[in-house]
Amino acid sequence: MRKLILAGTMIASFAALADEGMWQPDQLPAMAQQLKAKGLEIDPKSISKLTEFPMNAVISLGGCTASFVSPKGLVVTNHHCAYGSVQYNSTPENNLLQNGFLAHSLKEELPAAPGSRVYVTEAVTNVTDKVNQHTAKLTGADFYTAVEMAEKSLVADCEQAAGYRCQVYSFHGGLEYYLVKQLEIRDVRLVYNPALSVGKYGGDVDNWMWPRHTGDFSFYRAYVGKDGKPADYSQDNVPYQPKSFLKVSAKGVAEGDFVMVAGYPGRTNRYRTAEEVQNQFEHYYPAAKELRETLINIIRDTAPEGSEARIKYESMLAGLANYAKNFTSMIEFYGKSSMLSDKKAQEQQLNQWLAADKQREQQYGKVLHQLDTLVQQGQQHQQRDLILGYLGYTTMMPTAERLLRLAHEKQLPDMQREPGFQQRDMNRFTSGLERIDRRYAASVDKAMILELLKRYAALPKTERLPALDQFFGIKDKLNLQQLQQQLDKMYAATTLADKSVRLGWMDKSVAEFEQSKDPMIRFAVAMYDTNKQLRDAEKQLDGELMKVRPQYMAAIIAYYHSLGKPVYADANSSLRVTYGNVKGYSPKDGLYAVPFTRLQGIAQKDTGVEPFDAPKAELKLIKDKAYGDYYVKALDSVPVNFLSTVDTTGGNSGSPTLNGRAELVGLLFDGVYESIIGDWNYDDDINRSIHVDSRYMLWVMKYLDHADNLLDEMVITH
Amino acid sequence: MRKLILAGTMIASFAALADEGMWQPDQLPAMAQQLKAKGLEIDPKSISKLTEFPMNAVISLGGCTASFVSPKGLVVTNHHCAYGSVQYNSTPENNLLQNGFLAHSLKEELPAAPGSRVYVTEAVTNVTDKVNQHTAKLTGADFYTAVEMAEKSLVADCEQAAGYRCQVYSFHGGLEYYLVKQLEIRDVRLVYNPALSVGKYGGDVDNWMWPRHTGDFSFYRAYVGKDGKPADYSQDNVPYQPKSFLKVSAKGVAEGDFVMVAGYPGRTNRYRTAEEVQNQFEHYYPAAKELRETLINIIRDTAPEGSEARIKYESMLAGLANYAKNFTSMIEFYGKSSMLSDKKAQEQQLNQWLAADKQREQQYGKVLHQLDTLVQQGQQHQQRDLILGYLGYTTMMPTAERLLRLAHEKQLPDMQREPGFQQRDMNRFTSGLERIDRRYAASVDKAMILELLKRYAALPKTERLPALDQFFGIKDKLNLQQLQQQLDKMYAATTLADKSVRLGWMDKSVAEFEQSKDPMIRFAVAMYDTNKQLRDAEKQLDGELMKVRPQYMAAIIAYYHSLGKPVYADANSSLRVTYGNVKGYSPKDGLYAVPFTRLQGIAQKDTGVEPFDAPKAELKLIKDKAYGDYYVKALDSVPVNFLSTVDTTGGNSGSPTLNGRAELVGLLFDGVYESIIGDWNYDDDINRSIHVDSRYMLWVMKYLDHADNLLDEMVITH
Repeated sequence: MRKLILAGTMIASFAALADEGMWQPDQLPAMAQQLKAKGLEIDPKSISKLTEFPMNAVISLGGCTASFVSPKGLVVTNHHCAYGSVQYNSTPENNLLQNGFLAHSLKEELPAAPGSRVYVTEAVTNVTDKVNQHTAKLTGADFYTAVEMAEKSLVADCEQAAGYRCQVYSFHGGLEYYLVKQLEIRDVRLVYNPALSVGKYGGDVDNWMWPRHTGDFSFYRAYVGKDGKPADYSQDNVPYQPKSFLKVSAKGVAEGDFVMVAGYPGRTNRYRTAEEVQNQFEHYYPAAKELRETLINIIRDTAPEGSEARIKYESMLAGLANYAKNFTSMIEFYGKSSMLSDKKAQEQQLNQWLAADKQREQQYGKVLHQLDTLVQQGQQHQQRDLILGYLGYTTMMPTAERLLRLAHEKQLPDMQREPGFQQRDMNRFTSGLERIDRRYAASVDKAMILELLKRYAALPKTERLPALDQFFGIKDKLNLQQLQQQLDKMYAATTLADKSVRLGWMDKSVAEFEQSKDPMIRFAVAMYDTNKQLRDAEKQLDGELMKVRPQYMAAIIAYYHSLGKPVYADANSSLRVTYGNVKGYSPKDGLYAVPFTRLQGIAQKDTGVEPFDAPKAELKLIKDKAYGDYYVKALDSVPVNFLSTVDTTGGNSGSPTLNGRAELVGLLFDGVYESIIGDWNYDDDINRSIHVDSRYMLWVMKYLDHADNLLDEMVITH
Repeated sequence: MRKLILAGTMIASFAALADEGMWQPDQLPAMAQQLKAKGLEIDPKSISKLTEFPMNAVISLGGCTASFVSPKGLVVTNHHCAYGSVQYNSTPENNLLQNGFLAHSLKEELPAAPGSRVYVTEAVTNVTDKVNQHTAKLTGADFYTAVEMAEKSLVADCEQAAGYRCQVYSFHGGLEYYLVKQLEIRDVRLVYNPALSVGKYGGDVDNWMWPRHTGDFSFYRAYVGKDGKPADYSQDNVPYQPKSFLKVSAKGVAEGDFVMVAGYPGRTNRYRTAEEVQNQFEHYYPAAKELRETLINIIRDTAPEGSEARIKYESMLAGLANYAKNFTSMIEFYGKSSMLSDKKAQEQQLNQWLAADKQREQQYGKVLHQLDTLVQQGQQHQQRDLILGYLGYTTMMPTAERLLRLAHEKQLPDMQREPGFQQRDMNRFTSGLERIDRRYAASVDKAMILELLKRYAALPKTERLPALDQFFGIKDKLNLQQLQQQLDKMYAATTLADKSVRLGWMDKSVAEFEQSKDPMIRFAVAMYDTNKQLRDAEKQLDGELMKVRPQYMAAIIAYYHSLGKPVYADANSSLRVTYGNVKGYSPKDGLYAVPFTRLQGIAQKDTGVEPFDAPKAELKLIKDKAYGDYYVKALDSVPVNFLSTVDTTGGNSGSPTLNGRAELVGLLFDGVYESIIGDWNYDDDINRSIHVDSRYMLWVMKYLDHADNLLDEMVITH
């Protein structure tokens, strides 16, 4: 695509160039010169220390990033990251989501949605040796299990300290492992959110789009017990005092300025092989996009607009649509790009470099071939696997299966149970079961299952699962009417739709499951052995991949080091830093996306109809040119959102965007449509992240929402 | 709209500012200083002389503009202006439209479509006094008829000279009249057109859009008899030798450069009153848009894709859709703009200026009120008038009515007949009747009539026409079935679908019409008196408007002259000059349309599916970066289309775009979507015209189509 978007020479190299790179903080000191040249004013070393400013002000919410912005534990993140908590506190009579919410004092702050957490990273330890201690001679599933066991053991040790949550992160596909220890603050409260028509302005229409005018910010506060330690919600709790916090810049940034973003990017695929790339873009994404679109239509038909069922499925619809759009972009830009041929050229370069040296050839010469052999093995049943994977979007059958698995796992000592079924997971397990009440309608669940089973039944017999065939009486020709009747009976007879019944099954034995007549439980029992076989086969393959992929990555790293280039690891939800500049881009020939949007753009877009229905008071301020303290002459306005070249992905939402002095100049909240494919391939010409400008945040707080108490609490630099 | 698109102060003035203005050539010398400052290099006086270079190289095709580009009568215009001639010469076996066409020698040149003309303006004379000679004491329809008579007389005198076509143009609503004398060259031949996928690249999808990549150019040649005078097509004819021709620039223009466009813009409404603006945008455009969309659907349903009927209606569909899109833009941007309040403010300013001086107040003080009273009178039946107006899109009934009118008009001496029914109009009249064979299907015509009659029948009785009600038996409640049966019978029984029958009626008497049993003729006879009454009422109103509007314009002109500002007249299909600069614009906050598109953009847009299906050979050239002689370093490409601030409208299509030395740097072919409303209100921020770049024309001719003979024939400057 890049070749078409802007002329330029092909960069046939994996190397991190220009602003590409999600760096582990400890990699940054080695890049000091480049960072200084770009515009970093503080000592690059200081960014490398997780327990010092500014990194200790950057926190995780689990899935989103946030940061402390006051000495009293005030947290700023994206509106869409606090969305659930705002929704949780909303009632038809007092709709905080629609109207916005501002606590004028600590007393008025509201508990965040159940399960809300603030994670403060306190230590990151390289545990590669410990993980690999007993794995040298193992292969396949044994290797996999040994690694998992080592990780569980490290986590268990780490979590001996009360109030901490620990996790082992694998880097470079298993080349390195790091143990991350995070303070887990579990009394989180909602402090302030602008109205939906500010915080989600443009809604799904503008999702992933530029020009953008979204005030995607909200405020939480972290609370701890009087002893300063994490505690469950209590009126007696006090605001957490972070070791440091970010100052908020009222001066903001200008085009070309240095910016850096610290956050928890979820997942990228920058080092996949050409084989993997081709399969993903030519098979997986098109198939998954089509399936998502079908499921969306089924849900819409079964749960019409305005129905109670529809409310329950809005969230799933949004999720399905979000990635249907994502995949559409992926497919479109793959078609326009030279990504595949670039990848192939890169692999050829690597192989040439390896072949030039006997030792290298011996050590790594076959690794790409081995990796691709495993990759192809993993693709063997991909059509079936896609269908089975999307069964996970349904509720009843997976719930029964999960409960039965829990009964099986509970027969083992805690440390031997699989992740997700250990004691430490039980709170989440329970909330998952509770949440079903708000997310499930039998009619929709049944319609989705029916579609997936129809697709399953159309698979060749060799791809089908005998247990599943038998349970539903599926033969080479599907008897649709019979299948429908069976599903009708199952949904009519099951009692799993009752929350207390579901929770009750958490304590039952395998024998009790096997004696149950509940048709969903019977389904789980019938499928148990098959499911276990599928999981074991997956472990076997994963274990082999976990041996081979690190070698492939080691070869790549060695190659780059030979070129004097640093290598960053693919995103894995661990803390990373990315830096770049405020910069526009050309989305297509003849058009240029300028790096700032302005208040006037809100009035220009506004139709009065959601999602383009800015508050009347805001439109009045804009009409009156009431730009106030945040007027920027060059724009003749207050900036709303801006673009930068920083390298981010899902999970980075809410990340503080910092200037060269580590002051908060914005919050990252999205990437542009053309850069969705960036998860696979960063392109200097079109990879752009979208930030809400600190000046817009301050303008909304001061002139629209009058959040003077928060403006006073924060340290604002001019 | 402008206020929203880009911040700026409201310009509450009618005055021609910045690049607004479609100037009569003789106005230019007075603006010499401004033109020089802008970048005009040749003497501004030379542009004012119609019979000297460069103006005598600018010609009209009737509806489009063109220019001479060689001493041998080679003419360049838009591809869409020569479209009909290309289509006319195409057969399924030799599809010149799809494949393109190049005559390698004069012998290979093909006759253009019947009726094709090249008009060379030779004289423009102010005839205001002559037109007004006998009108002083007349009012209403008498005034109208007297003006019409004076015009016909001037035209008849002028056309005494063989080979000339003459027309009187009214300026400022009748304040001034000019007689234009044009050499009418009627042997026009097709010389060269690129393939459809170059010349109409982007098709209707990109129509009125930016970014644009359309190679909208084609070449004709004008032929005359051996005596150098216009002649019908003959093998003995020779190329016309124009007095001058334009050199073609291979250097082209860069961002910011001066450009001017000379051409024949059709119609603008820059001096309409607030009353007229409000009615047009709030009533007429929404209603007409809805009616067009309904008719489009009816035609599509009745003439399905691939049917023979569909081919006949493609052209009408395109026309209906073109203006449905146009009106949609009008409505959208009116909603966003402050046009109406600006107009009101302007009228207030004018009134204040008038009130400040007794004589002015006496002369013009009441003229706006008088004008608006007439305007409101004209709106009285607008719902009905819209329906009756769109009846003109149907074929059978209007044809019968026109034929009957001809019979009536023929009873009068030629000079007393109405325009369109004089001897000089008979060629066009005949071709109109012949063309029906390729543009008519009874099924579609009937379906359209039915829809329009249904709407007509829903009007209140006071709005309906007794003769029409009676003919179709329409009462307050419509009997749809009966109406359908009557139409079925009419279409089954009429013989007007036969070309020779239609042509035969051209020579029949009124009595023969009255005795006819053909149901379409009977309809025409039944409606004749009513139609005449409607026409007379219209003449009455038009006559009154033609007395009042010039006074209103005189007031406006006096006001501007008092401010030292020149005033240009609304477009009226006469030759005008507009100038400006190559310049991008912001279509919306956060986006900037850069002024050039590039070859790479074609490859980027290309899907292989019409209208984004560039020739494979072109895509290959682009992929190979075969930019050749027309490479522009700043763009790293060959420019394809560019934007400028010149002030143009429909009719300007094909106009030569000239640099400061009057060399051809492109052809105007469109305006951007945001500037459609510009017909009512030029906005400096968003009014942009779209040109095909001379370098793209030359690149296509040289590297893609190998039109070396034409490249040799033209004078190309470097």
